[in-house]
Order: sequence, then structure tokens, then C-alpha cells
Amino acid sequence: MPSLFPTAVYRERLEKVRELCTHHGLGGVIIGTGPELAYLCGSWASTHERLTALIIPAHGQMVFLLPGVDAGELQHSAVPQLDIQVRGWVDGEDPHQLAADALIGNTPIGLGSDLSATHVLRLQELLAPRTTVLAARTLAEVFMSKDAAEIEQLSAAGAAIDRVHQQVPALLQPGRTEAEVASDIDALIREEHDGGVDFIIVGSGPNGALPHHSFSDRRLSPGDPVVVDLGGSLGPGYHSDCTRTYLVEGAAPHPDFLALYEVLYAAQEAAVQAIRPGVSAAFIDQVARDHISAAGYGDYFIHRTGHGIGLSLHEEPFIMAGNSLKLQEGMCFSVEPGIYLPGRFGARIEDIVSVTADGVRRLNHCPRELNHHA
Amino acid sequence: MPSLFPTAVYRERLEKVRELCTHHGLGGVIIGTGPELAYLCGSWASTHERLTALIIPAHGQMVFLLPGVDAGELQHSAVPQLDIQVRGWVDGEDPHQLAADALIGNTPIGLGSDLSATHVLRLQELLAPRTTVLAARTLAEVFMSKDAAEIEQLSAAGAAIDRVHQQVPALLQPGRTEAEVASDIDALIREEHDGGVDFIIVGSGPNGALPHHSFSDRRLSPGDPVVVDLGGSLGPGYHSDCTRTYLVEGAAPHPDFLALYEVLYAAQEAAVQAIRPGVSAAFIDQVARDHISAAGYGDYFIHRTGHGIGLSLHEEPFIMAGNSLKLQEGMCFSVEPGIYLPGRFGARIEDIVSVTADGVRRLNHCPRELNHHA
Repeated sequence: MPSLFPTAVYRERLEKVRELCTHHGLGGVIIGTGPELAYLCGSWASTHERLTALIIPAHGQMVFLLPGVDAGELQHSAVPQLDIQVRGWVDGEDPHQLAADALIGNTPIGLGSDLSATHVLRLQELLAPRTTVLAARTLAEVFMSKDAAEIEQLSAAGAAIDRVHQQVPALLQPGRTEAEVASDIDALIREEHDGGVDFIIVGSGPNGALPHHSFSDRRLSPGDPVVVDLGGSLGPGYHSDCTRTYLVEGAAPHPDFLALYEVLYAAQEAAVQAIRPGVSAAFIDQVARDHISAAGYGDYFIHRTGHGIGLSLHEEPFIMAGNSLKLQEGMCFSVEPGIYLPGRFGARIEDIVSVTADGVRRLNHCPRELNHHA
Repeated sequence: MPSLFPTAVYRERLEKVRELCTHHGLGGVIIGTGPELAYLCGSWASTHERLTALIIPAHGQMVFLLPGVDAGELQHSAVPQLDIQVRGWVDGEDPHQLAADALIGNTPIGLGSDLSATHVLRLQELLAPRTTVLAARTLAEVFMSKDAAEIEQLSAAGAAIDRVHQQVPALLQPGRTEAEVASDIDALIREEHDGGVDFIIVGSGPNGALPHHSFSDRRLSPGDPVVVDLGGSLGPGYHSDCTRTYLVEGAAPHPDFLALYEVLYAAQEAAVQAIRPGVSAAFIDQVARDHISAAGYGDYFIHRTGHGIGLSLHEEPFIMAGNSLKLQEGMCFSVEPGIYLPGRFGARIEDIVSVTADGVRRLNHCPRELNHHA
């Protein structure tokens, strides 16, 4: 069971949503189950296809709608301590109508990111002529920027996965399989993360050139580069996510790999240093990409530079071409350029960072330098 | 890995979607990841927040959009055997624009049930002035009605869970805990379902009055009623879902329980017998509810009468008040009235049924009579 923040933290977040609704001309928001709900009131309630939603009007009574038979789930959340009316509905009532009725006026309504089309289309019908917008995007200041309590959690998550990474080099012995290494790492992540393991990638040699590889029965050879991308969750549900690329000892690495890694290292550093409030997400991607392209590896950097992280593992801001979203203080995301030579090897370096008032703070501190002593 | 239907089955479904689009005046549909996608092309691809979607225009080329790095996932689906163009996109491209561009004309577009608000709102922006509707509801004939191949799978699922239920009475020994019984049942479900366990409810005595109970450390007492609701999945991903209420041997059950059960048994039978094409989902709910209310238990039947089932565990048609949806041949759903006396005991009887050309077919056949020899 993930723990909760103090009630005052949730109260402040809810108040900020209301203020921002007024500021951005929204009549209110309807938030479905998932990370946004957990963020606002500490509830991970999940009631399948039956509508469960927190309705926050810009002015007036906040309402938590859920099937009456599931009302017990709220005991584990901050809802009972907040000024939220709980409205349990029974089958045969129209919960979408109840949601629409909780929001008055004729200004647009914000919808939570995770509401499914089934709910969205029905709500739009009932809210008309009011239009709907994505709450996370219109109210980016609260949904995409992290407050101090959240950054502290992400910092703790970063420290936890750093401690795991520091034990990885000793596991990468020639002759062991990626799966054997992954099994050891699994135990290490669990030791450091009370919420368990999110994912483990151990991509050695040519498998390192597959960004979505997990692990296989391939045995490590001396001198192999190994991409190790790890994540778990802890506390109220915050995620860690950190990639390092290692070398298996016992043989000199291929000089092409060392050249590639040098480019990647500088690209990641340049992208991180370019972060500050007011620049666009696309710009940070461009900094990393330009650096890699200038060295002739542009065709081998085949994914975006990063993604937001918090109570969900991937969220806005997505650090990629086309995303004109302006970075704001408190946004937290990964910076993870990679270079992948098909059939040969790959490398990726990933840190979580937070945007500060005038720059950036890294939340991962384990060494980014290759474990290679020339 | 769930198995696939023969390619011809998927081809026929896709063709039917196109015909129905024309018939109902839709320009096409955009289906996200989840059961609807698996139904149409056998793919359970899941690529997190990056848009993955099958686009089926009423006329013209079908397109499967997904992140290029995940294209390998389609090997496990029927897509390579179907007339579907695979379009892998890279970060920085606008996949929503690609989806919108694959659909021409000015008629409304159907959206898949599981697309999240993030995708729905962006697609609506790009599709405008075209309106959007819920594909599952407008094209109910294909999304809610099952074809012969699916009904065969659901029938096999019904037989599988029937074989589990037949072994349950022997497990309900006085002194055992609900959790111990559930652990035995877990193994039995796995033996019969290659896709594993979906859920296990063992609600004895007062716990039987909680419809969403799972199981606890409560020990069974002689004469206790026990609600046992079980489900697993098998084959290409079809679900079983069947509830029986049992009595623990060793003491006579409470006469109030026997009276209640008799009402419930007749209500479930009446609701099943009322099923035929053309009647509304709400009507079936009403039949069960009227029967239970007439006997004075109306306040203790606190949920809908049933839900559709297939590649998802809960889907349309929902058998509940207010749902004017007309039943059609091939629809498959649960009929599961229950009566719950708080603090005392509860009972529920649940079968999956399919709507036939002129009536109904039960897909569960294990005894509904109480295991009680007066």
C-alpha cells in the first residue's frame, strides 16, 4: 500500500487546480482513475468500466463519484480528510449525468488524461454546448509541474536506483546470461523500492541496439557493451528510471564503441545543461539530436530524448520534436539520448532531472563515465 | 501467448466493420489497444502512451499505426496476413495527424472504447469538423455481438469454469479459511484456463453480503452460505465468469437463507428466459429486479443484473436500468442477480448466456440448485 502525503499537500493541490481553472477560463475538471487522481487525493481506486471520478469545479462543492459498493476503497486515500463530497452511485443511475450536473456554467471543462473514450464521449454529450480540453495540458502548471513534496519523492527514487546501479558492474561477469543478471537486479531493486520493480533491461552486445529489449539468455562476453535501464516505484507511487551503459571486463572494448560513447556522453550533458524554464521540450530534444547528428550518428538515435515521470512512468512533458510545450519550474523528466548500431551494440545514458527556477537539477548521480580503464 | 483465430475470421470481422460504417454513415473507425484491437486483428500490442491504433476507413486502405520500435510485436498477431498497411512512426512525427489523414470525407468517425482522453481530444481536434462517436455503440452489431468463433470460445470458457465449480463443494470444509479455499481454487482455475486466473471470490457467511469481497482469513462454519464467483481466461483471451452459492455441510442452513435462495433462483431463471433479440438490456434487469422486489428483497439487490463478456471481462451490453440498448443475436453477457443481507449472508447466481436467433443459450451448466439435502 503506497503511503500518503500529509493532507495539507492534497488540499494545496486541489486549491491550485481551482485557481488555475479560473485563471484559464475552465468551469472545472473531471479526473478519472489513475495517476492524476492519486496526485490530487491519494486514491488509486480502480473500478473497471464503472465511472469513478473526482469532479473539481472552479467554484463550489468538489465531488468524488464512484460505485457505492466500492466506497470502502476511499478509506485508503486522503478523501475523507478533504472537503470532498463522496457520492456513491448505484447501477441504473447515470453517473455521467451526475458528473455533468456537478459542474455549472458555460465555460470549457477539463478532462483527465486517463478517462477512456467510453466516458469521454458520453461526458461530452452531456456537457454540450460546453467544450472539453485536456486538463493536463491546459493546467500544465499543476499537472505537469511537481511541487516540493513530489520532487523530494522523485529525488528519493533517484537515490534508490542509483544505489542499485552502483552494484551492477560487479554482476556483469563474462559467461553469465542477461537473464541471470536481471534476476540479481530484480532483488536489488526490491530492496530499495517498497513499490516493487517496474522494468529491467539488460541489453548486451547486439541486444543493446534494441531500445525495447528486456533481457535474454545471451551470455556476456568480455568487452561487451551492456545497456542497463532500470526502474521501480516507492513511497506514494513515484517511479525511478535510470540507464547506464557498462562494459564487461576482460577485454578491450571496440574502438568504435568508445567513439560512439564519447559523443553520447557529451550529447546528454549538453541536453541537460540546456534545460531551464521557458525553453520548449522540442528544443532540448534538438540539442541532443544536433550533437549526435553532427558526429554522424543521427540515423541511429531513433527515439525521443525523454519523457515526464512522477506517479506515472511516462507522462508529459515529452521531450521530442514537435512538442512546443514550454518547460516550467518543477517539471521532472528523463534525458535519455541513445545511439544504436543494429547488429553491433548500443548505448544510452538516462537521468531524471527537475527544472529549477533558473536551470536544472539532476536526480540521478551514479557515474555516467564508462567503467573502462584504458 | 494467446492463440489466434484463423485469418479468415479476422478478415470477415474487418469487412463487417467496413460494411457497417457505410450502413451507419461513418467514415471509418480508429481503434486503440485493448480487447477491440485483439478482436479485429489478434493484436494485444500495448505501447503505453504512444499512439497505437488500427484505422479502418469505410473505403480505402486500412492502416496499423504504431511506434516503429514496437513493430516486432505484430508478428504475434494476424496483421501480417491481413490487407493492413503497417505504418511505424518515429518520435517527432505526429501520429494523431497520421491517423486523421488515413480517413477521408466529412462523415463522423467512430472511436475505440479504450482510447484515452489524451488521444481522443487530440484526434477530435484534427478530425474536426467531423464529429466522433463511440464505435462500439454505433457499430454494436460487430462490437457487441459475437460471431460463431467467439461463442465457441466463450462456450469453452464456460465449460472450463463449470469443471472448476464442480470441485468446489468438496473444498468447503468447516474450519478451513476462505483464503485456503481460494488457494485450492486458484490451482484448479489454472488447470482449466491457459490464460490464468482473473479473480476469485469466496464470501462466506456475512462476507457473502459484500459483492466485491475477495477472500479473507474467516473460517467456514457448518451451515454457512458461501458465494463463490470465479473467472479465468483462455484461448485467444476469452473470459469465464460464473457464480454459485454453496452451503457448508454439517449443520442445517438458516431458514431465512433458504427462502431467500428460492427467490433468487427463480429470479435468475426468469431473467434468462426473458432474453431474446429485440428486448432491451434494461428489460432483462427489470425482470430479475421485479421478481426479487415482489418477494420483499428489492433493497438487497444492489447491483446491475449483468455485463457483456468476451475479450474483456466487463463490456456492453450492460444489463441494467436505463440501458435502452436492444439485444441482438450473438450478444453474450452475464445474468447474475444477487441478494445481500448486510451482516448476515448473501447469495448470487451467475451464468454467461448468448442471445440466439429466437431466444437464449446458457454457456454455464453446473448445478444452480443448493447443495442441500433437507
